[in-house]
Amino acid sequence: MLDAKQKILHLLRSERPDPVSGELICRHLNVSRTAIWKNIEALRRDGYEIEAKPRSGYRLISSPDILAPSEWQTGLKSKIIGREARYFKSVSSTNDAAKELARLGAKEGTTVLAEEQTSGKGRLGRVWRAPSGAGLSFSIILYPKVNPMEVSQLTMLGAVAVVNALKQELGVPAGVKWPNDVYLQGLKVCGILAEMAAEADQVKYLVLGIGVNVNQRSEDLGELIHSAISLRAFTGRKISRSKLLGAILEQLDFLYDLWQEQGFAPVRTLWKENALWLESPVQVSGLHEVWQGLMEDIDAHGALVLRLADGSRKIFHSGEVSLRPGHH
Amino acid sequence: MLDAKQKILHLLRSERPDPVSGELICRHLNVSRTAIWKNIEALRRDGYEIEAKPRSGYRLISSPDILAPSEWQTGLKSKIIGREARYFKSVSSTNDAAKELARLGAKEGTTVLAEEQTSGKGRLGRVWRAPSGAGLSFSIILYPKVNPMEVSQLTMLGAVAVVNALKQELGVPAGVKWPNDVYLQGLKVCGILAEMAAEADQVKYLVLGIGVNVNQRSEDLGELIHSAISLRAFTGRKISRSKLLGAILEQLDFLYDLWQEQGFAPVRTLWKENALWLESPVQVSGLHEVWQGLMEDIDAHGALVLRLADGSRKIFHSGEVSLRPGHH
Repeated sequence: MLDAKQKILHLLRSERPDPVSGELICRHLNVSRTAIWKNIEALRRDGYEIEAKPRSGYRLISSPDILAPSEWQTGLKSKIIGREARYFKSVSSTNDAAKELARLGAKEGTTVLAEEQTSGKGRLGRVWRAPSGAGLSFSIILYPKVNPMEVSQLTMLGAVAVVNALKQELGVPAGVKWPNDVYLQGLKVCGILAEMAAEADQVKYLVLGIGVNVNQRSEDLGELIHSAISLRAFTGRKISRSKLLGAILEQLDFLYDLWQEQGFAPVRTLWKENALWLESPVQVSGLHEVWQGLMEDIDAHGALVLRLADGSRKIFHSGEVSLRPGHH
Repeated sequence: MLDAKQKILHLLRSERPDPVSGELICRHLNVSRTAIWKNIEALRRDGYEIEAKPRSGYRLISSPDILAPSEWQTGLKSKIIGREARYFKSVSSTNDAAKELARLGAKEGTTVLAEEQTSGKGRLGRVWRAPSGAGLSFSIILYPKVNPMEVSQLTMLGAVAVVNALKQELGVPAGVKWPNDVYLQGLKVCGILAEMAAEADQVKYLVLGIGVNVNQRSEDLGELIHSAISLRAFTGRKISRSKLLGAILEQLDFLYDLWQEQGFAPVRTLWKENALWLESPVQVSGLHEVWQGLMEDIDAHGALVLRLADGSRKIFHSGEVSLRPGHH
């Protein structure tokens, strides 16, 4: 349901670049002139530039790059992902907010967005940081009917969705680093954090949190400059976060549907097409040991297949090890 | 920390069958006569029978079979399981209460108990029912550093702990039905529900909920009479729930420690020693298919290994199928 503010925005947008008279808005929304003025003021506070002229009316000059659903939900081509959304200016973490909503029974595909996360989370309890308005952070609520061990398939699916969206929307040559980071020029541009509630053999809900470095400047990255990169730093221009978001949500929607219909096999194929270091030398680091070998494959469950120097193979599950390129 | 009520109970118990003078209690606890009287009244409301005589003092005649920590925690031989406890007269479900406590960072091993669950849960969202005071329902908070796929090992561990406690405490010949039900005379006497919060590859917390049919009379079981049995119905006498609880907690503590030190292998051995239908014909039912064969083994991950008539083997993970005895 659109509120009065969103309806006014919709009207202004549909008439753009022409102005819309106050009278027309009054008739359309059946509200007073004062109510309209208050909503226009609220839109301006959100960052919309709106011109008001006595005899012609209101004219939308420019929109801010905010993640409000009004900026991306209207034309979204998806069946379930992003059909419902919750938008926060600031939230502890979109994953925490999404988990709370999932516990309360939010619809599958509900997308939780925030301009700013005050305690954004990375994998294994690490911190994920982004200055307000520069990063793109959101979380999707899913109810896949699977065993917890299959959830890693969905984090890999998430990485493929981001890579596809980056390629299609921006022409950026991103790749996936096993299991589910998205890399650009050898640096991390997107991280994915899946959190679930489950019984021993059945997932109850899954929250897929996605964080993309979009409009951070190099100096915003701080000490991460050696391991992370933003799309702005790579392309040299500011990126519309809301357009990129729409593209990622559509990819997620398509791939989740594919996965439900056909299982992990087609997702695995797409993942491998975008994989970093496949058939190349890599180094796999565990807590106490390091292995060198050729990254031969990922298996039917998403596990990494490493071929060692002696020709034998070793299988690694995510979480227990980390991966980096090796030497020939 | 014991409160005044528990301290008084402790004093009465240590002097049993002799009375304890009000003066002595005053000195020990440094409280007024009125405070003592109020606490004695509270203990009586909890079901303790306490005699009060003008010149001799207070004497503990009998204790109720309640699950309050004062009834089982004092002599408990365990390292972590049950060292902390939360006791409720009534709660929606001990698993829900335990999950909330785990989110707030409760200590590992914290045990949540309730005399009554208003919406007790079985596996896959099913209802678990027990009249107040007749069943034994509790949940344990654990923080195992494992992949979600390894959680089924811990539910199997839970079943072994219950079987061992039933044998040792009551001499009852219980067995485990794959993966984690406890059976007696072909009927269910205990169910286990594991619920976790996890990332794709790392458990954050695990709540192990255990429900044992203890003092239900046959008529309490209602339509479950054909699939369930209580210990009272089997033995013909009322069982002390608090003593049985202590025995299960000690077994859990021992086995959890063993599992952390040596992994699933020794737990698997114990599980197999108590398994129903091992090396016997069984029927495995999936959603759309039924398999007949010999229950050959459970593998290193706890999966069921079925040998089919043609000599081939099929592996089943829990959750996807159910098991029952087959025909020779």
